[in-house]
Amino acid sequence: MTEIEQRRLAVSAALAGRKVDALLVSAPSNVRYLTGYTGSNGLVLATSSGTDFFTDPRYGLDATHTITCKVHVAKGPLLDAAAKLIKRKKLKKVGFEPAWMNVGEHQKLKEKLPLGVSLVPTGGIVEELRAVKSPAEIEQIRKSVQVNSEAYNRTIKRIRIGMRELDVAAELDFQMRMLGAEKPAFDTIVAAGDRTALPHAHPTGRRLAANDLLLIDMGAFVDGYASDMTRMSFLGNPSRKIRIFYKAVLEAQLAATAEVRAGASTIRVDGAAREVLKRHELERQFVHSTGHGLGLEIHEGPRIARKEKTKLRAGMVITIEPGAYVEGLGGIRIEDTVLVTEHGCEVLTPTSKEFVSI
Amino acid sequence: MTEIEQRRLAVSAALAGRKVDALLVSAPSNVRYLTGYTGSNGLVLATSSGTDFFTDPRYGLDATHTITCKVHVAKGPLLDAAAKLIKRKKLKKVGFEPAWMNVGEHQKLKEKLPLGVSLVPTGGIVEELRAVKSPAEIEQIRKSVQVNSEAYNRTIKRIRIGMRELDVAAELDFQMRMLGAEKPAFDTIVAAGDRTALPHAHPTGRRLAANDLLLIDMGAFVDGYASDMTRMSFLGNPSRKIRIFYKAVLEAQLAATAEVRAGASTIRVDGAAREVLKRHELERQFVHSTGHGLGLEIHEGPRIARKEKTKLRAGMVITIEPGAYVEGLGGIRIEDTVLVTEHGCEVLTPTSKEFVSI
Repeated sequence: MTEIEQRRLAVSAALAGRKVDALLVSAPSNVRYLTGYTGSNGLVLATSSGTDFFTDPRYGLDATHTITCKVHVAKGPLLDAAAKLIKRKKLKKVGFEPAWMNVGEHQKLKEKLPLGVSLVPTGGIVEELRAVKSPAEIEQIRKSVQVNSEAYNRTIKRIRIGMRELDVAAELDFQMRMLGAEKPAFDTIVAAGDRTALPHAHPTGRRLAANDLLLIDMGAFVDGYASDMTRMSFLGNPSRKIRIFYKAVLEAQLAATAEVRAGASTIRVDGAAREVLKRHELERQFVHSTGHGLGLEIHEGPRIARKEKTKLRAGMVITIEPGAYVEGLGGIRIEDTVLVTEHGCEVLTPTSKEFVSI
Repeated sequence: MTEIEQRRLAVSAALAGRKVDALLVSAPSNVRYLTGYTGSNGLVLATSSGTDFFTDPRYGLDATHTITCKVHVAKGPLLDAAAKLIKRKKLKKVGFEPAWMNVGEHQKLKEKLPLGVSLVPTGGIVEELRAVKSPAEIEQIRKSVQVNSEAYNRTIKRIRIGMRELDVAAELDFQMRMLGAEKPAFDTIVAAGDRTALPHAHPTGRRLAANDLLLIDMGAFVDGYASDMTRMSFLGNPSRKIRIFYKAVLEAQLAATAEVRAGASTIRVDGAAREVLKRHELERQFVHSTGHGLGLEIHEGPRIARKEKTKLRAGMVITIEPGAYVEGLGGIRIEDTVLVTEHGCEVLTPTSKEFVSI
């Protein structure tokens, strides 16, 4: 049995526990996870006895060749085709993903179904499976991480004073593409000087200048799997103040990473970073969470944050990315992609966390 | 009054006609249209007496500086903050965008609202306004189209036999970024040889070879506004058969463009392309619609398709992109971005539609 077929079996097996006869899977990443389908218009209906996949004629030929469950090529809306099958199969309680069906679609679907059929919000079944990666998925993420780091290496050598943040971002994206990425996993962040203090800076026409702090936060999608890394560098010789600042964030990042292992609670990993930053009086400048899972999406479960008490499991792949942002001085964030293992973790990101002078 | 303030007034004025006291605007492009906000977490509540904007602390500072309506910086979910305001303002019938609110959000919002408040699906108010572009928006699209075409020109000069489709796509994206685009408006399509017959080909590792047909479909986002263009070229001297094929699609493209004017029905524009292709016995190979509007999104109203009877209005910006796909031979699509004018149209795309040999 292929890995994809095993996943479908796991979904079928999970339906009873959620008290539904079927699950309509509409989240694109979940559809991909259960079928391998990578296009933009796919839908899955999973029941305890099997899985049906719906797409439109543009993808029909390809889908029938590559997808091993039953493929339906629908001319109209996929939900209409699914409604017909639900009727034919006499399903009564049909789960759907409430975060991936909009109110308009839900209304139309309800109108197409017989009165006796109820639609039951049933989120998270596939996400739960996706949170723990298989060895093959870990290999994919490893590839993605390597492409991402190599694109960073190639670009960092070309960075010169006078380049715009936008030029650096374009070069990073170009390099990752040349190395085999489909595209960036998110809009690449390049922030220089005081713009590093904006945690979600988009690259602008600002030109790199001497004594600029430089923050690069980048990720790639390679064969559908994401990577995520943040590195800091400095154009010149950083002041003592900046070096101390950098060391504090690095200490936080290493402290959080040291807490990662199967069985550890995500709140503890987050707390480890927060404690270090508190000691350096930077706790209030750490305005986001410590990390997140990644895989077919750049943000997926688990969240590594305050108040989040998920138990880490071996095979989860998460980011560890504490940061602190000080208006007037700048912001520093350091981020790795790490694999949770039985007794600790493997930092997948190969790029050095040394504070590099350019 | 600024253009953005005028748009908000127009939304306020439209509420009565839809019998709602307010409209919750959650579609990101609509939020941007009404506020200028470009981040990832914004929400608008429009009433007949004014507009409120919600975002989170990450964007709070920036938003209060740049957005001229009332700004609320919410720590929790934006819909919770909006629910509080709805309560405080004693609004009773609150419209929402059914295609931009998922069932989970809708459920949570309902729970936060007093019993007497009803949520009314009220789609399309902002989209209707957005379909007709202002002079300033047309200038933006013009810039986007120019960046896109210049990126194409620069890339086409570098294309050599042996390059992969992926290399060409990476170069196109790099060039548009260097010319000022934020990012591609969609995943750039580069298809060579028989892969041109797939209407939605993603670039692969396939290497360009002599006598390959080459299809490039690309668009840029520049300051938020999209462009869209498809051009064909040939690596070598095309056969007579391919040249006749190209001429047929070009004839269809020009015939559809000739029908574009204020007052014309979209079905007629689509039909003009279809009639030409029918004459060349390529009608069944034309498997998609003739075009679509573009602006803050790459696909927006109106659709130029069979069965679509929207009257074109001056100021609409649409694509005209008929194509035909023949298995074994290849596919040809030719696409311009055009501006609807009172008595015809202006083809914004400056790139020649000559069938170029590389």
